[in-house]
Order: sequence, then structure tokens, then C-alpha cells
Amino acid sequence: MAQSEFELIARYFSRLGADRMDVRISVGDDGAVVMPPPSRELVLVTDTLVEGAHFPVGSPAASIGHRAFAVNLSDIAAMGAEPAWALLALTIPRYDEAWLAQFSRAAGDLCRKHGVLLVGGDTTRGPLTITVTLAGIVPVGVALERKGGQAGDAIFVTGSPGDSAAGLALEQGRLHVADAMSAQILRDRFLFPTPRSEIGVALRGMASACIDVSDGLGGDLEKLCAASGCGAEVDAAALPVSEALSGAVGRELAREYALTGGDDYELLFTVPLARLGAMNNAVARGLGPVTRIGSLVAGGGVRVFARGGVMQFSGAGFDHFAR
Amino acid sequence: MAQSEFELIARYFSRLGADRMDVRISVGDDGAVVMPPPSRELVLVTDTLVEGAHFPVGSPAASIGHRAFAVNLSDIAAMGAEPAWALLALTIPRYDEAWLAQFSRAAGDLCRKHGVLLVGGDTTRGPLTITVTLAGIVPVGVALERKGGQAGDAIFVTGSPGDSAAGLALEQGRLHVADAMSAQILRDRFLFPTPRSEIGVALRGMASACIDVSDGLGGDLEKLCAASGCGAEVDAAALPVSEALSGAVGRELAREYALTGGDDYELLFTVPLARLGAMNNAVARGLGPVTRIGSLVAGGGVRVFARGGVMQFSGAGFDHFAR
Repeated sequence: MAQSEFELIARYFSRLGADRMDVRISVGDDGAVVMPPPSRELVLVTDTLVEGAHFPVGSPAASIGHRAFAVNLSDIAAMGAEPAWALLALTIPRYDEAWLAQFSRAAGDLCRKHGVLLVGGDTTRGPLTITVTLAGIVPVGVALERKGGQAGDAIFVTGSPGDSAAGLALEQGRLHVADAMSAQILRDRFLFPTPRSEIGVALRGMASACIDVSDGLGGDLEKLCAASGCGAEVDAAALPVSEALSGAVGRELAREYALTGGDDYELLFTVPLARLGAMNNAVARGLGPVTRIGSLVAGGGVRVFARGGVMQFSGAGFDHFAR
Repeated sequence: MAQSEFELIARYFSRLGADRMDVRISVGDDGAVVMPPPSRELVLVTDTLVEGAHFPVGSPAASIGHRAFAVNLSDIAAMGAEPAWALLALTIPRYDEAWLAQFSRAAGDLCRKHGVLLVGGDTTRGPLTITVTLAGIVPVGVALERKGGQAGDAIFVTGSPGDSAAGLALEQGRLHVADAMSAQILRDRFLFPTPRSEIGVALRGMASACIDVSDGLGGDLEKLCAASGCGAEVDAAALPVSEALSGAVGRELAREYALTGGDDYELLFTVPLARLGAMNNAVARGLGPVTRIGSLVAGGGVRVFARGGVMQFSGAGFDHFAR
């Protein structure tokens, strides 16, 4: 890319996101300089989106910009941290001003909403690949981890997992849904996922373990269980499938999407029984959409109880539901 | 990539680099948790290498691993910070264990040497692209910037710029050098650049402005001048061209490489005359290879004085030296 193109690109990213008083040097020098608050730990996350692997070729630039930051915000939320500063490594095949404008506007909107300022980055020419790095802030010793869950803890999930996988299937023409409004809701859940930043912060001191659901609820629950050294029992009937999804594909298939779909960017977490009261109070005070789906148990593995039988999660997926 | 391949890959990166006591949660959770020291600022940098753009297709994996971290270490050095924690976003076209072993070994060697621990990352499948993010630590208010230089300040550069560009030309078959030892020295300067971490830290409180030389000395000096609001005069005869380079291509062409080549990852910095004594003392005490090449002047632009005339830097390069 010509030098002047890099300079033009830099303009799109020079004040992207929220105003932050703790940034002393931002985009434009060899590095950014930020001032971490005293007595806090930092949470560092990075995630890459590759065209054709993490989003379909030709996805809207606004969706790509949103998702590149959302997937990282979700990781920060899963750690119980507040997001603060972002770096963007953007590899693009060509200089396309309209694309850059849409990408950066959507990214900026999401960053502002979550209090994040883009403080640096790198623009390179190549196959479309976006890596965002986020730094978040958390009080000492309270970051949520995948480990820490114990047998008996209640398992919760935010939002309505499965929507995003169905939305991607719609985008790719692998799924057809008659109802246009349901189809749009599902597509938007893939294109513009909602990171659960506020819920993540509220879970500090309440959740015993937490992971963000990016590869599918069942698989990610398996990871939480492995890290925590226990197993899980999930009640299929309790899975919070959305009306859009169950209306579009039926309740049974909706549950399969919820268990094995990916790209949800919801939080999956466990709460000790002793803190269930506090958890219910938080929900009553408006914590947000959280649903109890089961319990951690002694042993290992993830079992799902449904009308018709029990299924064992197999790593790649579940056996089909008995109907 | 199959899930098990991702798990195998994670093993290569689970303890890469130096031991650090300030890392509470490392590779393997949704994010890393690190403990910044009190009363310090953080420096955040990120740089991407794309195959075919930043290194030739088929470059040795060890070189790619080294360079991916070196270019970021160089940015941290240019800010006068100490590197601490790294994140690696690695996009690879296929699972290749030998490649991963060589890549991670070279990256680990360099990180250990510079006190850096890899604390997280993301592995994805796609065209070979490597983004490293580094966080460094610096006392409050002393980070070096591109701005801050003033007319009269002496201009210094570390090492011998130009070697790396010649090394790349050799790698690409655009340059032929009869002397095999010189050719190897130059190739190695491209393949395994030396980040100037210790010099960067030593320049705190001494340098008035600093930038790392990644796009060519002339162009990067122009950026320092633009940020500092002044111009520069460079003495071509003072440029520290290496014996390997001048022996290989002659002194005049060597100076052109030094001024317009790229990928040097040397530090270019300015020192006020009042601190030149301290600077010379630091050099005498073993600061490392630094050479004065000119002075900042009032006005703007970069002029190079050589036997035969004065050249004005044009953004893309210099006019040829008169011979």
C-alpha cells in the first residue's frame, strides 16, 4: 500500500472509541502509553478473525468491525474485567475507503459503548485478517477463571445461545427460514453479537468459574469442567432458546444449535449454592438475561438430560436428541 | 484445524519466554492476568508480519518467529520501555509440527533474552500472518516519543542501518555478493534483527526524541522531524555502514542502503547538546553501538550532505549520490 494510504487509514483509527483520561500517548507514535490504576491487575486477550474462516467472504464491513472487537470484549467479560485499551492489527487486501469507514464506525460504536479507546495498531496489506488485542482492568485476585467450579455449583448461561450459529447458517444459505423477522434476528445475532461486559463484571465474587461461549455451549462447558476438575449435567428443557430460533427450526433443533453452535459470545458460568441467593438478587436488580441450565457434578464430562434420554457430549458434538 | 491440533499448538506456546513472577494467569484461560508494578505506565505495541509482504515466501520458520517478536521489541525499545508480556496471534495455513517447533524455539530464545513471557494468544487457520502484541513498563512520564527533538540536538542511530535491506535483497536474489561471509552477515541482519532494548531503556532522560528505524533511516527521520517540528541535516560520511555492506556493494551504495533501506529495527534518536556529555559517558561505559550522524535544525525536511552535494529527502527516497 502506498504510504499516503496508510496515513489515510490511520485517520480512521485515530480517535476510535471512548474518551479515556488514562491514555497519555495514543495512535501515532511507536507505541501507546497508558496509565493503569493503582492496585489493579491487567487482563490481556487477543483474538483473530480470518475471512472465510471466522466470517463469510463478503460479510458487511460493519459486522466485521463489530465482531473483531466483540469477540475480544467477550473474553474480557469472561475474566470479570473492565475493558480499557485496544490495539488493532488490520490486514486488508486493498485500500477501500467505504469499507474502512463502515468497519471503523461499527468498531468505534461498540468500543464507545464499552468504554474502550483504540490506542494503537498496525495496518498491513494482505488477505483480510483482523487481530484485536484488548487490555482490561480487574481488582487484584478476583479475575474469573475456567477453573474454580465445584460439584454442586449451579451452571448459568447468558442470552440465547444457538441464535448465532443459525444466523451464520442463514448467511451461508445452509438454512432457510420462512419468517423474515426471525431470520433477521438470527442473522443479526451472528453479525452483531452482544458482549456481556456488565454481566462479567457483576459476576466477580459470585461466579466460581466462567468461560465465554465461542465454540459452542457443550464444548465450552467441557473446557470449564476440565479446568475445574468436575463434570456437568445440563437440563435440555432449561436451555434458553430464543423464540426466533425455536420458531424457525423447531424446539429440538433449536436445542441442538444451543448446545453445539458457535460464535455465541455469551458467558457460561457457575455459582456455588451458597451464593445463589445473591445471584437471584442480582438478576432481580436487572443483571441481564441469565438462565440456569444445570449443575456441576463429581467426575467429568458433560451429560445432557432431555425427554427421551441422556446424551454424553463427545467432543465434536452430541448424539441427536431422541424425539 | 482439528481441535486436537490447536491443543498441540498451544503446547508450543505455553511457557514461551522468560519466567516472570508478575504473571498470575497465563496461556490457557480466556485471558491472561498480569500484575503491573506500582507507579508505572504501560507501553502497548502491535505489529503484523504477512508472508510475501514482510518476509519472502518460504523464509525459515526460525527467522519468522524471531522477527515477529523483534519488530515489536524494537517498538518497545523506541519508547524507552522494558518489555514484559506478549500475546501471539498466529494464522497458519496448515499444521506443520517442524515449522511450529522452529518458530516457537526462535521466538522463545528472543523473548527469554529480553525478559518477555508469552501470556496468551490465538491460533487460527489461514494465510500465514503473525501479529504480536507486547506490553512494556516504563516509569511515569519518561517514555520516549517521536516529538520532543529541538533544533541543535544531535542525531544518533544504533547499529549499522542498511545491512538488513541488503540482506533481504540477497534473500530475494536481487543482489549478488561474491564474499560468502559478507553475504551471510547481511542475510542474518535481515533474518535475525537485534532489538535495541537495553539502549532504549538507557536513553530515558537522555534522548529528546526517538523512533525505531523500520521503513528506512531517511523516512523515519522525516517522521521524527515532523513530530518534533524541525528539520534535520545528516552527514553522509558519518553514516555507520558496516564493513560487510560497504565491502559488498561499495561505500556509496552502502550509504544509500543505510538511508533508504528498511527493516533495520535500529533506534534513531536525538540528544540535546547539554546532554551530549552524559551520552558520551554512557557510550564509554558500554551503551552499545551508537553513532552521531547529524543535527536537528530549524525548519523542516531531511537534507543529507555528501561529497559532491546536498540531497533533499523526497518521501520515497533520495536523489542518487553524486560520485
